[in-house]
Amino acid sequence: MFDIKQYLAVRMDWVNQALFQALPPSTEHPVRLHEAMRYSLFIGGKRLRPILCMAAAEAVGGTEKAALPVGVALECLHTYSLIHDDLPAMDNDDLRRGQPTLHKVYGEANAILAGDSLLTLAFEILAQQPQGAKLSLELAKAAGSRGLAGGQFEDLAEEQQAQNHETLMRIHANKTGKLIRAACRMGGITAGANTGQLDALGQYGESVGLAFQIADDILNVTSTQEVLGKPVGSDAKREKMNYIACIGMELAQTEARRLVEQAIEQLDALPGDTQPLQALAHYVVERLT
Amino acid sequence: MFDIKQYLAVRMDWVNQALFQALPPSTEHPVRLHEAMRYSLFIGGKRLRPILCMAAAEAVGGTEKAALPVGVALECLHTYSLIHDDLPAMDNDDLRRGQPTLHKVYGEANAILAGDSLLTLAFEILAQQPQGAKLSLELAKAAGSRGLAGGQFEDLAEEQQAQNHETLMRIHANKTGKLIRAACRMGGITAGANTGQLDALGQYGESVGLAFQIADDILNVTSTQEVLGKPVGSDAKREKMNYIACIGMELAQTEARRLVEQAIEQLDALPGDTQPLQALAHYVVERLT
Repeated sequence: MFDIKQYLAVRMDWVNQALFQALPPSTEHPVRLHEAMRYSLFIGGKRLRPILCMAAAEAVGGTEKAALPVGVALECLHTYSLIHDDLPAMDNDDLRRGQPTLHKVYGEANAILAGDSLLTLAFEILAQQPQGAKLSLELAKAAGSRGLAGGQFEDLAEEQQAQNHETLMRIHANKTGKLIRAACRMGGITAGANTGQLDALGQYGESVGLAFQIADDILNVTSTQEVLGKPVGSDAKREKMNYIACIGMELAQTEARRLVEQAIEQLDALPGDTQPLQALAHYVVERLT
Repeated sequence: MFDIKQYLAVRMDWVNQALFQALPPSTEHPVRLHEAMRYSLFIGGKRLRPILCMAAAEAVGGTEKAALPVGVALECLHTYSLIHDDLPAMDNDDLRRGQPTLHKVYGEANAILAGDSLLTLAFEILAQQPQGAKLSLELAKAAGSRGLAGGQFEDLAEEQQAQNHETLMRIHANKTGKLIRAACRMGGITAGANTGQLDALGQYGESVGLAFQIADDILNVTSTQEVLGKPVGSDAKREKMNYIACIGMELAQTEARRLVEQAIEQLDALPGDTQPLQALAHYVVERLT
């Protein structure tokens, strides 16, 4: 019986230690900028993307150790996207993971620059890994105007417009799915995966990413502020598109579970230990129960 | 006699064409984000960093053609930094190159995301070049919290504080110098330059970058709004630190010319055609007369 809680706890520790070492020390000039970067990175976070990256490396016979620095880069990029999404000009969120958002503590200009710096640091870290260019390309494609940034752009544009299932799927695929997909593929790259294996890892990541987003939408309705770290029902309040408003609670739950099964099917042909990736796919929706 | 005007005009055309092709078409989804990215890139600009990059490649015996895509990445990164610097939370500038700044036309959220997308695109382009990882590392180090973003951070923090020459030098070195230095080194990398040659190109870039910034400060006082594309004296108005306030007009002019000579001395040992780099160094301060 695979103990996912223990598995996650151990790897969260690894990732946190590696992050701590990869960031410029908060004593280094400019001190307050480096403090701001650390504030957002260490305010919490499940480290899901780094852990998926390491599990993907293992699934094709590689080592978690080789994938760890790549996971650190992924977490830097993910954190940049949260900082910028929370800004007053964007989602204007005051709370993130139960704590004041970065711009609330350090001001708006510093939050923009801390985000910019974390985005840049992600590429600095990748450039120093074996296969640095291949890894960078994967991350840049997932994060740019055709991925995460484009998804956030469209999400803002679509707020208060008609809720359309197809648009919602595309926004989620770009905002959340592509980075999770990239995390899995990049883990595979560190392990020297071939094209077929990278495709399987990518499809696993796409399905898990979508399931994860649906689970988030469900939690946004059903959870408590204490668990969620932000007000419950905030999506509905700002008329933000989400799955619940779009297809209803019951169908959303069914869809999330279907995606998990679909993700796990992709792992059949992989040569390494796929147990962690299986458990992670289940974990993503088990948060719901 | 080297015709710098003709030289610049030809290369500006190359860079503009290459930029036009490297950017996602403005018909591609999300349309308005891609339009915003193009607005800022094609609003004007001397393309100094791409041209320095190409000239540096030539100076060590490489080709301008191989350096051109790297120049495109540099211009994307430079444009991102201008977009974010202009934001209301930062320098709050309404005009850039004589035109409304991006956030004035597309709104603040979209300006932040267009900047993020251009920063990311720079690394996407570099990752596809030979020596992609080495080039990415060079750019990331110049652009991150220890470079450009850190310099902007400190510039904002120092506004309305005592004008100190040492602080001013460090801010300029980070905000402007490091990217121009990287442009020269990256041109060298595309041409397979050795460590000594990269050092020489880097030192050339540092001196030219500082001379360029001093020249900008001088123009901020002496030019007309028509030439400058933004109000004259805007630095003094917001009590922004600059060389003129710090060491006076006469010393600033002397210092700019000294830096140009210092830059050109670095070129002596390089094996290729260094005439363009020489002319470019002079051009940087000749804008003053």
